[in-house]
Amino acid sequence: MEGYMNIKGIVNFIFELGQLKRQKHSGYMLAGVKDPPTVAEHSLRAAQIGYILAIMEGDANPEKVASILIIHDNPETRISDQNKVSARYFSAKEAGKKALQEQLQMLGKEIDQRWSDYYHEIEERSTKEGIIAKDADWLEVAFQAKEYLDLGYESTIDFLDNVESAVETESAKKLMKEIRSVKFTDWWQGLKKMTYEKLK
Amino acid sequence: MEGYMNIKGIVNFIFELGQLKRQKHSGYMLAGVKDPPTVAEHSLRAAQIGYILAIMEGDANPEKVASILIIHDNPETRISDQNKVSARYFSAKEAGKKALQEQLQMLGKEIDQRWSDYYHEIEERSTKEGIIAKDADWLEVAFQAKEYLDLGYESTIDFLDNVESAVETESAKKLMKEIRSVKFTDWWQGLKKMTYEKLK
Amino acid sequence: MEGYMNIKGIVNFIFELGQLKRQKHSGYMLAGVKDPPTVAEHSLRAAQIGYILAIMEGDANPEKVASILIIHDNPETRISDQNKVSARYFSAKEAGKKALQEQLQMLGKEIDQRWSDYYHEIEERSTKEGIIAKDADWLEVAFQAKEYLDLGYESTIDFLDNVESAVETESAKKLMKEIRSVKFTDWWQGLKKMTYEKLK
Repeated sequence: MEGYMNIKGIVNFIFELGQLKRQKHSGYMLAGVKDPPTVAEHSLRAAQIGYILAIMEGDANPEKVASILIIHDNPETRISDQNKVSARYFSAKEAGKKALQEQLQMLGKEIDQRWSDYYHEIEERSTKEGIIAKDADWLEVAFQAKEYLDLGYESTIDFLDNVESAVETESAKKLMKEIRSVKFTDWWQGLKKMTYEKLK
Repeated sequence: MEGYMNIKGIVNFIFELGQLKRQKHSGYMLAGVKDPPTVAEHSLRAAQIGYILAIMEGDANPEKVASILIIHDNPETRISDQNKVSARYFSAKEAGKKALQEQLQMLGKEIDQRWSDYYHEIEERSTKEGIIAKDADWLEVAFQAKEYLDLGYESTIDFLDNVESAVETESAKKLMKEIRSVKFTDWWQGLKKMTYEKLK
Repeated sequence: MEGYMNIKGIVNFIFELGQLKRQKHSGYMLAGVKDPPTVAEHSLRAAQIGYILAIMEGDANPEKVASILIIHDNPETRISDQNKVSARYFSAKEAGKKALQEQLQMLGKEIDQRWSDYYHEIEERSTKEGIIAKDADWLEVAFQAKEYLDLGYESTIDFLDNVESAVETESAKKLMKEIRSVKFTDWWQGLKKMTYEKLK
């Protein structure tokens, strides 16, 4: 395999991915969040959500869904994150496709083919895995928005409403319903182990 | 002109202004804000508010008001921002004046004269432009305080009350009234463009 | 004047400007900067540089240059900051113009006319004030890049080279030359006052 690959290109590409650890998700800034999560942080949780959704749905390959999600925001190293207000003024879709193509040229034919397919599947929602991946992408935003809502950023309720309208799978709809009925801190209730002992 | 100017002094002065990008507005820390806006962020919006107020008032030069506001916090590169609690213990007024004078020595006679005048006008509110600039300086604090109030920092209501008592112009009073009746996120309601399409 | 103005529109617009206090200058992220300055921080220093350049050039109105610069990045509340890599994939120019027009509808006829003219002057460099404002916009980046260079972000030397090629006025060229020969910390050498006394 190695004969076909450009080691220098791969190394440069991996450094390029470092941008995803600096680029922030700008949508939350509209709600007043000063320092929102990075694109990388979003994608990591989206990949795990997608895997779980695939198992819930039952008729999709969870590893493929996760793989789609770990690469789906790669163009944002070059074109950065665009929010729904900026979408009013320009579409980043063609730009994203071009940035992806240029990135993939560094990675050899096999990755190029696979990741181009992945990108098409999530963007066009042309396969079950693509549909699930897109739902997971949106759901991750809903989870983050709920966290901010619980913290007092009231306008993020708008993000929850939009995700609820957008998701397609039954499993995503079930999760959305539950999200609203919990607090984001519920998970650790009962987990804490108190370590002090009363004196005498 | 050039004969009178000290290029090295100007360059050093512009680097000194970099401090305004790091100095934080400490007053909001009293309300529990961990990472408040910088002095530079405050001054930029204050300048735009001042410009608008001058147009609203009708009998003042908006470009002059904006120019007063972009330089009015320059002494804070050296003496940093002082809040209303620290004002109980010392007056920053003389210190600010001295810092400004030393800065202006680096910039040549013409800028020295103009900016000294600007500083006097806003500090003493000795001209219509100075009065408007001071109102804008306070109003910017009110806008920021309202944002924090909407985000749950309840004690910032005190900042709003103080600004309301302080402003002099009719236009500033009108804006103050309206500030309280909106949410800081109202501006983007209706601007978001959803980009997904429902499948089938 | 007041009859022509929409107080609610003005208040919403000033809250919208709050985005400039959150949006970061993304170009520096390419150099590895995790938390670069905001758009507001950039614009405030650019306005002061523009004022100084106008005085140095001698044949331009410094208050107008400053006023152009305080509003020139307003569209970035909606379309966010684009860097020179993203410019490879799409142009934000038309989007910026549309965003500005929509903003100005909230501010009444007089500000609309003035700020539309300002924006045209800096974007097209159609007046002496527009040329100086654009030089100041670039110079501010050079000053920031030099600061990062001194801090060890070596690749920002590329930003300095690009600004040096771009600036048009003689005064900007003089400052560019001097920027490289100083350290960004030179300004406070000699200003520190030591406050301890040796015991005995």
